[in-house]
Amino acid sequence: MTALLWPGDDRAGDLLSDPAVLLAMAVVEEAWLDALVELRVAPETARAPRLSALVTDDDVDAVVATVAAGAEDTGNPVVPLVKLLRDRLGDPHPEAARWLHLGLTSQDVLDTALVFCLRDAFDHLAEELAAQVEALVGLARWHRGTPMTGRTLSQHAVPITFGLKAATWLTAVLDAADLAGRLRWPVQIGGAAGTLAAAVELAGHAGAGDPVATALELVRLAASSLGLDAVPPWHTARAPFTRAADALVTCTDAYGRIANDVLVLARPEIGELREPAETSEGRRRGGSSTMPQKANPVLATLLRRAALAAPALAAQLHLAAAEAVDERSPGSWHAEWSALQLLGRRTVVAASQATELLSGLHVEVGRMRATLDADAGGLLAERRSLAPLFPRDQGIRDDQGPGADPVTYLGATDTLVDAALERAAAYVKGRS
Amino acid sequence: MTALLWPGDDRAGDLLSDPAVLLAMAVVEEAWLDALVELRVAPETARAPRLSALVTDDDVDAVVATVAAGAEDTGNPVVPLVKLLRDRLGDPHPEAARWLHLGLTSQDVLDTALVFCLRDAFDHLAEELAAQVEALVGLARWHRGTPMTGRTLSQHAVPITFGLKAATWLTAVLDAADLAGRLRWPVQIGGAAGTLAAAVELAGHAGAGDPVATALELVRLAASSLGLDAVPPWHTARAPFTRAADALVTCTDAYGRIANDVLVLARPEIGELREPAETSEGRRRGGSSTMPQKANPVLATLLRRAALAAPALAAQLHLAAAEAVDERSPGSWHAEWSALQLLGRRTVVAASQATELLSGLHVEVGRMRATLDADAGGLLAERRSLAPLFPRDQGIRDDQGPGADPVTYLGATDTLVDAALERAAAYVKGRS
Amino acid sequence: MTALLWPGDDRAGDLLSDPAVLLAMAVVEEAWLDALVELRVAPETARAPRLSALVTDDDVDAVVATVAAGAEDTGNPVVPLVKLLRDRLGDPHPEAARWLHLGLTSQDVLDTALVFCLRDAFDHLAEELAAQVEALVGLARWHRGTPMTGRTLSQHAVPITFGLKAATWLTAVLDAADLAGRLRWPVQIGGAAGTLAAAVELAGHAGAGDPVATALELVRLAASSLGLDAVPPWHTARAPFTRAADALVTCTDAYGRIANDVLVLARPEIGELREPAETSEGRRRGGSSTMPQKANPVLATLLRRAALAAPALAAQLHLAAAEAVDERSPGSWHAEWSALQLLGRRTVVAASQATELLSGLHVEVGRMRATLDADAGGLLAERRSLAPLFPRDQGIRDDQGPGADPVTYLGATDTLVDAALERAAAYVKGRS
Amino acid sequence: MTALLWPGDDRAGDLLSDPAVLLAMAVVEEAWLDALVELRVAPETARAPRLSALVTDDDVDAVVATVAAGAEDTGNPVVPLVKLLRDRLGDPHPEAARWLHLGLTSQDVLDTALVFCLRDAFDHLAEELAAQVEALVGLARWHRGTPMTGRTLSQHAVPITFGLKAATWLTAVLDAADLAGRLRWPVQIGGAAGTLAAAVELAGHAGAGDPVATALELVRLAASSLGLDAVPPWHTARAPFTRAADALVTCTDAYGRIANDVLVLARPEIGELREPAETSEGRRRGGSSTMPQKANPVLATLLRRAALAAPALAAQLHLAAAEAVDERSPGSWHAEWSALQLLGRRTVVAASQATELLSGLHVEVGRMRATLDADAGGLLAERRSLAPLFPRDQGIRDDQGPGADPVTYLGATDTLVDAALERAAAYVKGRS
Repeated sequence: MTALLWPGDDRAGDLLSDPAVLLAMAVVEEAWLDALVELRVAPETARAPRLSALVTDDDVDAVVATVAAGAEDTGNPVVPLVKLLRDRLGDPHPEAARWLHLGLTSQDVLDTALVFCLRDAFDHLAEELAAQVEALVGLARWHRGTPMTGRTLSQHAVPITFGLKAATWLTAVLDAADLAGRLRWPVQIGGAAGTLAAAVELAGHAGAGDPVATALELVRLAASSLGLDAVPPWHTARAPFTRAADALVTCTDAYGRIANDVLVLARPEIGELREPAETSEGRRRGGSSTMPQKANPVLATLLRRAALAAPALAAQLHLAAAEAVDERSPGSWHAEWSALQLLGRRTVVAASQATELLSGLHVEVGRMRATLDADAGGLLAERRSLAPLFPRDQGIRDDQGPGADPVTYLGATDTLVDAALERAAAYVKGRS
Repeated sequence: MTALLWPGDDRAGDLLSDPAVLLAMAVVEEAWLDALVELRVAPETARAPRLSALVTDDDVDAVVATVAAGAEDTGNPVVPLVKLLRDRLGDPHPEAARWLHLGLTSQDVLDTALVFCLRDAFDHLAEELAAQVEALVGLARWHRGTPMTGRTLSQHAVPITFGLKAATWLTAVLDAADLAGRLRWPVQIGGAAGTLAAAVELAGHAGAGDPVATALELVRLAASSLGLDAVPPWHTARAPFTRAADALVTCTDAYGRIANDVLVLARPEIGELREPAETSEGRRRGGSSTMPQKANPVLATLLRRAALAAPALAAQLHLAAAEAVDERSPGSWHAEWSALQLLGRRTVVAASQATELLSGLHVEVGRMRATLDADAGGLLAERRSLAPLFPRDQGIRDDQGPGADPVTYLGATDTLVDAALERAAAYVKGRS
Repeated sequence: MTALLWPGDDRAGDLLSDPAVLLAMAVVEEAWLDALVELRVAPETARAPRLSALVTDDDVDAVVATVAAGAEDTGNPVVPLVKLLRDRLGDPHPEAARWLHLGLTSQDVLDTALVFCLRDAFDHLAEELAAQVEALVGLARWHRGTPMTGRTLSQHAVPITFGLKAATWLTAVLDAADLAGRLRWPVQIGGAAGTLAAAVELAGHAGAGDPVATALELVRLAASSLGLDAVPPWHTARAPFTRAADALVTCTDAYGRIANDVLVLARPEIGELREPAETSEGRRRGGSSTMPQKANPVLATLLRRAALAAPALAAQLHLAAAEAVDERSPGSWHAEWSALQLLGRRTVVAASQATELLSGLHVEVGRMRATLDADAGGLLAERRSLAPLFPRDQGIRDDQGPGADPVTYLGATDTLVDAALERAAAYVKGRS
Repeated sequence: MTALLWPGDDRAGDLLSDPAVLLAMAVVEEAWLDALVELRVAPETARAPRLSALVTDDDVDAVVATVAAGAEDTGNPVVPLVKLLRDRLGDPHPEAARWLHLGLTSQDVLDTALVFCLRDAFDHLAEELAAQVEALVGLARWHRGTPMTGRTLSQHAVPITFGLKAATWLTAVLDAADLAGRLRWPVQIGGAAGTLAAAVELAGHAGAGDPVATALELVRLAASSLGLDAVPPWHTARAPFTRAADALVTCTDAYGRIANDVLVLARPEIGELREPAETSEGRRRGGSSTMPQKANPVLATLLRRAALAAPALAAQLHLAAAEAVDERSPGSWHAEWSALQLLGRRTVVAASQATELLSGLHVEVGRMRATLDADAGGLLAERRSLAPLFPRDQGIRDDQGPGADPVTYLGATDTLVDAALERAAAYVKGRS
């Protein structure tokens, strides 16, 4: 899977890649077939080798191409994949080939595979979020005493510390981590129209005393072997996907917010922040194709890109949810897959870039101080405006006058940094 | 506030209306001024009458017009409102006029006012969601034995019951109620750049032993009197708004999903559902301007409209969050206000319409049965396709043949309905 | 119509306001009724006074409220408006009341009214665009010799002139004006399902020789009196609306692009541009509620807001077009109205703000020059990198060295400015 | 390039694929280098073999992977591509390697390559649109006398013909073709900050009499060899991309609109339309993974999917245009590439599917007639409601009564079909 036009895409590795989704579909079929055999709905002879092993690393790209090419006739990739798996089970395992997929519908397999891949992506995201929290806790602590100019509506306002700015970034990251941490990962197993009718039918044929109970036990068993929650079908109640999408975009919101500050503060006229100049492998970053002096803030640029694109993708999932109809939906369901894949991969890429940016961020303490001092008068204008309220304070105090140090007007900055750090500590504790 | 082009808008009453937001801003200023006096930061002479009472029902529209017209010069409505309130406090309360708004910034007032109004909207939504759950529980229970045709990708699939369809709708509504129920409502109080510097300064002037502690106590006191949570400033960490928006759009997702089924099943050729023909006041609904025979499914039409429009509004909030910059943002903050207002009001309108639709929905049991019987062969095709797996069952069983009743192939439908009802029961219990 | 949460909204005056849309609906009904009488389809006794005069300036707000409240029962405001107009025609004009709206369907009236109002909005926009072109031509000409730092990816690149920057802004504005200038304004008259059946029926009853020809003549006559094009019905072929929306968002794209430059270059550390400090009425602009020193770039802030919100609104129109179904659509049609109104008004507001911003923009020539000089070495790095290609040029030339003036490296700047000015001249000529 | 999750993607072949974009970038570099040599700015020794031939069909995938992996360090794929091309020019062509890319900036190369690929996509689209027009003209002509039920707001309205419905689809397709036909394809050549400074510098070094004129001649020459228009740089004036995006989404709007009708009318209870049952290669289409009786409307399903996803992608381009800043933009530029690629490819896929759907559509004339007859009374209700207006017509005429044929109430249907056919004829003529 190349992504020439989304630089950094390789950071996501195989997460939610086409091969990963295809293998996850095979894993889902396998979990279901195993459950059928385990509960003696299917005969022992239907026990199959690991289905996902039928597709090897060597040929997964070819299989993806074959399945992708065959997907249009039925509208989704499950039918051609099942055909291919049956062919490969072939002669040695005719019963497994026969029983494969029985009781499931295409949407069961694809939805569950996407959940499976999303969970992997979120597991990865959780590590990145933790690393970001760690980096931000470090910045907030280290720079709690680093004064800088507070800016509002693009203009100088009152003094802050860089520690406070880092604490605000931290708040946004913790908000995203909160949402991500609450997601549940359900299987989707309902059969043709969400009634489990085929599974019940199979259980009945097989002589189960209570075929319905057996069908539900099949779902539980398959879910358990996939590490997912057993829940009733949600073919047209799509909150599991919209919640995941909302959590993903809340991550990129946080990264975009950070990137915007870096893009502003790394402007040469401001110069208060600087991106890490080299990649972790030691390559120079941010060069230009023509201008040798350039050191473009590439990570912030690519983070901003992701943040600008993510909201529309999450909205796509909501639109698909809103347009669901019947027992399974034509078109709106199909619009979800690629949106989830793109949103998931891009968020993982952005998370990795954000971690790198935060871990290597250069804070130009001297420039911050210099900007602050140069505009001390302006930054204390609010303070001076309050003086007339207090006739008993005779005139403007020393710390309000033209020569006053803006650092004396930091308000509750320290305590607010502490509050963010406490929340981060609770988050870290909650993870361990 | 008229909304000629959003029929049904009046269902939202004053929730998040311009006057409501304006009055909420006054309430926020009041809570803060009270806190200043209460903690002796401001003198007793600054105690004001109820600020929100300075704007009466009679003149609120005029005040809104004045403030709206004056909002452009500073870019937001807080500055002209503060001016107007100071003028009205006028001679009798010069100290109150003087102390009004001190320590706050415009964004504190507007953000908190929007939170305040959103909470009201969600309180209202909670009632609607509960009513919808009740209606859906009723439909799911009553129709657990009402068989109908399951449809997937627009074609007949296998039999379901209308009870199961109602249970799926219920799942979507409970998912939305879940999200809505977890929202927290924070104040936004941080002063010019989120440092509480002015509040600390005022507390110091007033002789507070620990001015920072006093400033934080001011926040707590104001939050408490507003019934909101005291949290650190979130001027540029906008998850409180994006989470609310995500919850709102998850509601309209559920309503859209229901509306689409009604629009399909109320088509004359299908005729399995029918909207309530009259409004609660007994007016005929769904008439046409020219065709006397028409009974258009108006509620479902308007619900679908809301569901098509909501995802982009929620995405707007995410985009604004992602584009935050500095200590307070130019443009992205300003893009939030109207999006929240529109999304909030429209969701309340849709919720009310959904409740009415669900409470008065006509279920044409006979038509459902007739469609099912007419296509019994097709609906049992899946079942027949499973027969060859079981050589010990000699041939096709009676319940699979051409004359078989589709009702015998309902799978785990009943148990799945029970699962949804149990979840609904837990939700109802959790509310009481 | 207040718009507390969209500061500047009053700049749009009545364009696309609720009263304007309502009056336009009355005007459409009037044009049709006049045509019916004119072509003797309706009797002379059906000739009505000016329908739009039945709603006066005094009571239009009340009428809007009444019609808005009555719109839900049928799902659109046309039915209650027709009822109200019939009541008001009342006793003196019973035949007019009877013939009113005959042959039309609700969508005919509302779509045509929206086209009518959109055309007014675009007429207004055209004036603003012309004023912007004029201001930009002035800036491009005046500052063709004002060198400044070119910035790419937020970092210094090579020198440009402010004239060139203005020429680029001009290009974006001319692109928008191009699109806006090509729009056509069609009536929507098709009757219940776009067949003009009722109109043909009425013409037949009235004794027309060729009732179909008469019906089409009715459309032409009504269109002509409204100043709109007579075209076949487009109830479910929505390009007339999506094209208008695309033109509107192309305007806000241009304004957003300009606003972003102003927001960057007006930062105190850069200080190369400054917004007009006072409104046209002489009020100070950009003040803060707490910080007396502040002069926030309010116009750029509000322009950026509009530019961030517009793309989703235009997308809403495309989504509605894509979701059209049957002969007239449930829900997707209804989602268009408010989106068009908001997008249209907001673009007019933004256009007016953009004109004011551009007309009063302060260009800090000295700051531009100072920034340029301070980084002369960097800005000439590209030039120096080219030197080794030319061994016959011995070493680095004077104009490339550390003391070289960046102004010597302006490339084709002047000629490119000329190209933009020529295009502007052609545009101006095309308008006159 | 696999696209497991966008079934049908292979219909787009190489259009806008990663390899196609990469090769187009090489073609752009080649055109520029050729121009440099041609105008003697670069020495004859810099003449290179066909650069695009340096990447062969065999290794293009590997090159894409290499370039994609190297793109993050500088934020775009141009820098690693230039490096790779220089390496491959290597020893035999050291001067070509040296001169490669001189005078250009990354954005010049990538933007122009995207324009180049977009033009190819639109060339392909033009053929599909023409085929769709042909198919629709056929349907409109053939079925001008095929009466069917007109449906509005999901309910029966008045009679139409299927020819009229096809004419309305045709209108939407012609509207899209109109927009597509007006697009212009400009090069993007401006150098580092849009001043052509490096090109002018090179021309000067090379002894050009008027280096600026020579630089502009370089642009013209390169543009001409690429078959693109020579225009001033549009690095931050992005209408060329937004207009293309708007045209693309107007295509998918038309296809979505058609698909929705097919999805409704192919429902078994309605059965008035049916998708082609087999692919052009004779494979059965629309099968289910479990239900043997199913024939899902796969083409309409996949068209609807595309139509639901396209508006957000076009909005992405507008957002990027609106967020442009400086002389070249961080993040917003980067967000365009993938959006254009996805929108372009998906529209081509949808166009191909739409052509196939329209060319093979089964029109169930008998079912249409049967539905019409079954509801003759309802479909004539409007007509009956007009009767009382004409006292001289004694009572309800025969053609209005319960036994009347709805076909007598088709209004101007035929003439409206003619109007659409005339427009189609003009379009066809304009193409030849």
